[in-house]
Amino acid sequence: MSNTLKGSCIIGQSGGPTAVINASAYGVIRTALDAECITKVYGAAHGIRGVLDDKLYIMDEEDPKELELLKNTPSSELGSVRYKIADPDKDDTDYRRILEIFKKYDVRYFFYNGGNDSMDTCEKISRYMKKVGYECRVMGVPKTIDNDLWGSDHCPGYGSAAKYIATSCMEVSKDARVYDTGMITVIEIMGRHAGWLAGAAALATCCGSGPDLVYLPEVDFDMDKFVADVEAIYNKTGKVLIAVSEGIHYADGSFVSEAKTSATDGFGHVQLGGLAVRLANTLKERTGAKVRGIELSLLQRCGAHLASETDLNEAVEAGRLAVEAAVAGETGKMVAFERNDVDGKYVCEMTLIPLESVANLEKKVPREWINDEGNNVKQEFIDYALPLIQGQPERPTEHSLPRYARLKKVLAK
Amino acid sequence: MSNTLKGSCIIGQSGGPTAVINASAYGVIRTALDAECITKVYGAAHGIRGVLDDKLYIMDEEDPKELELLKNTPSSELGSVRYKIADPDKDDTDYRRILEIFKKYDVRYFFYNGGNDSMDTCEKISRYMKKVGYECRVMGVPKTIDNDLWGSDHCPGYGSAAKYIATSCMEVSKDARVYDTGMITVIEIMGRHAGWLAGAAALATCCGSGPDLVYLPEVDFDMDKFVADVEAIYNKTGKVLIAVSEGIHYADGSFVSEAKTSATDGFGHVQLGGLAVRLANTLKERTGAKVRGIELSLLQRCGAHLASETDLNEAVEAGRLAVEAAVAGETGKMVAFERNDVDGKYVCEMTLIPLESVANLEKKVPREWINDEGNNVKQEFIDYALPLIQGQPERPTEHSLPRYARLKKVLAK
Repeated sequence: MSNTLKGSCIIGQSGGPTAVINASAYGVIRTALDAECITKVYGAAHGIRGVLDDKLYIMDEEDPKELELLKNTPSSELGSVRYKIADPDKDDTDYRRILEIFKKYDVRYFFYNGGNDSMDTCEKISRYMKKVGYECRVMGVPKTIDNDLWGSDHCPGYGSAAKYIATSCMEVSKDARVYDTGMITVIEIMGRHAGWLAGAAALATCCGSGPDLVYLPEVDFDMDKFVADVEAIYNKTGKVLIAVSEGIHYADGSFVSEAKTSATDGFGHVQLGGLAVRLANTLKERTGAKVRGIELSLLQRCGAHLASETDLNEAVEAGRLAVEAAVAGETGKMVAFERNDVDGKYVCEMTLIPLESVANLEKKVPREWINDEGNNVKQEFIDYALPLIQGQPERPTEHSLPRYARLKKVLAK
Repeated sequence: MSNTLKGSCIIGQSGGPTAVINASAYGVIRTALDAECITKVYGAAHGIRGVLDDKLYIMDEEDPKELELLKNTPSSELGSVRYKIADPDKDDTDYRRILEIFKKYDVRYFFYNGGNDSMDTCEKISRYMKKVGYECRVMGVPKTIDNDLWGSDHCPGYGSAAKYIATSCMEVSKDARVYDTGMITVIEIMGRHAGWLAGAAALATCCGSGPDLVYLPEVDFDMDKFVADVEAIYNKTGKVLIAVSEGIHYADGSFVSEAKTSATDGFGHVQLGGLAVRLANTLKERTGAKVRGIELSLLQRCGAHLASETDLNEAVEAGRLAVEAAVAGETGKMVAFERNDVDGKYVCEMTLIPLESVANLEKKVPREWINDEGNNVKQEFIDYALPLIQGQPERPTEHSLPRYARLKKVLAK
């Protein structure tokens, strides 16, 4: 084949971890190890930082069984990073170093697994290598629980987080309704700018025990309206379960979680603690009800024990496709998902889209998928998200606890 | 049989919910429905409150398949209550009402499913019925995630909560170590007076990703010692994961979670929010590290999706035995667990112990199961707790989310 390129490859992971980012890494590593033209497979320690610091693990040295356990290992096993590299046209220091490392290890393939920022890094490296005439195929493998990557129907990581959130909301809903006394429970869910995760709480409603109210950052938050929404239900049933996105904000754009005092609570108290506790306290002051604030915190993004099989399989496939496409000659692309349902049955197909069309853009929940009141999602959202949480993958265990991959992480010299 | 007693029965649930309290209810209800001498099976709405208010659900009217789903339904499906009834020798108002209801429905069997306080209720009712000469067999079915019931090796509910805690700690441990920057994470675990739950975090250590430090209420807490413990690890590895019981307290008995200001932080700041956030903030002030506080909150007690099969089966069996023993003539007893391992293999046998030997006593973690430093549990604790989390039960699902029991709850007139 004319476009055969022989050389080694690097895989790096970046941004916040997910339940299945390692499944994508597995897809990349396994496929790369099996690819004839790829001579060596390196894992960068802490993403691009590991390239800059010459800290590369030799994946060829790992036990294949341990590598396969990456599919069930949450978080970023190679280590992640939030380092933002400069624009190569302004400051090429980092890029010269990357090129040096690429040459040192004869790196001809670079796979980067991450969200918006990572695709930006990917795009810059791709652009630089082209500019200096170093042949290296650069591919992005998407991940983000936030589901806000532009150009893809959804992202690996989202389905599993959504499943964790929906399941936890069902469980909390059962628990929070157990006494014969009034109770208002606020659950805080990740998602700084997009409400995909908070909306997933509503999936629990399909199964009869979801939240009564759901607040997304796509709609401006109004504290008085919020209290009125809650009171209306509380006065009727005595029990209210509310899911809120951490990113809800007032009309002026300021985050509710960051307001030093709740502008409308009329008490002027300084409220510390997370958003859930803060909102719960406001509701307590306003309604006199018993309240509880629960923050799903890191649990929602690392809950591999509740991974969606659909999500996990797609994560592996995204990694595999990135390598296969690069071997076939593609570069400067990200693997994206296209939904092409057949007879109402969920079908996800993978495509490649240019990195520059993804980098630094955010996809939000369409306003028309949120009800007019702005306090719940509509059926359109459920229809979108429900297929993504389907299936329970095999979960290897040891002592009935998860058995994660144990990599040797042998450093290249 | 001379001691055959014909009549109906009531099952009530009380105290904080667990992942498997409904499994015990199922054990009681199923066995009672099948017992010839039991003419009708009533479920009390919100425990003893439902008896006092004449709110009884007819369990005979339920679909057997839905009843069986109780095994996988968290929280107390019949509703719980925290109502404490008086001593019958001082005020018998409630007891006269209970007797009236018992007579109205010809109740000859009363099963109460709960923790310390519930066994106290149970014992008082048993005593009163004996005193007034009304023949009714009263049996306690234990439950409590706290595992602090006296006279039983362990309690239904504990194993599942322990499994949730250990699994979540493993996942958080992976997540909290992902960046190449320092990070201290504090996980707050339930248990006001006993450290059984916090200790369960250490089970994750068997699988290679547990907490570095574990603090139980059985050892007086010292803030300076705590900060020094954390700093020692932080300075070595840059990452520290700490599990703390919500019940940790200073030597004077005051709860760390309730101290208005941390006596030793030297800043005099009023710290609000949960214990995890409070300790994390203190560590941030003292070490300058990046910190995160996580409260497992209600999630740990209602996490039915991570139930231990051992725990679930024992919960059902405890319910079954209570009914069988009562039918055979027993009364005034609680089902208890005795551990009789054979060749190092876990064997749990059920016995009956007098209610008065249980009521209002608390079983704590033995000091010799905690290390000398007071900052972790020893192998003895692991050996005790690990068998209790074994096995993954079948999990009925719908849309890949839990399928809980949907009871009709037909009220008796």
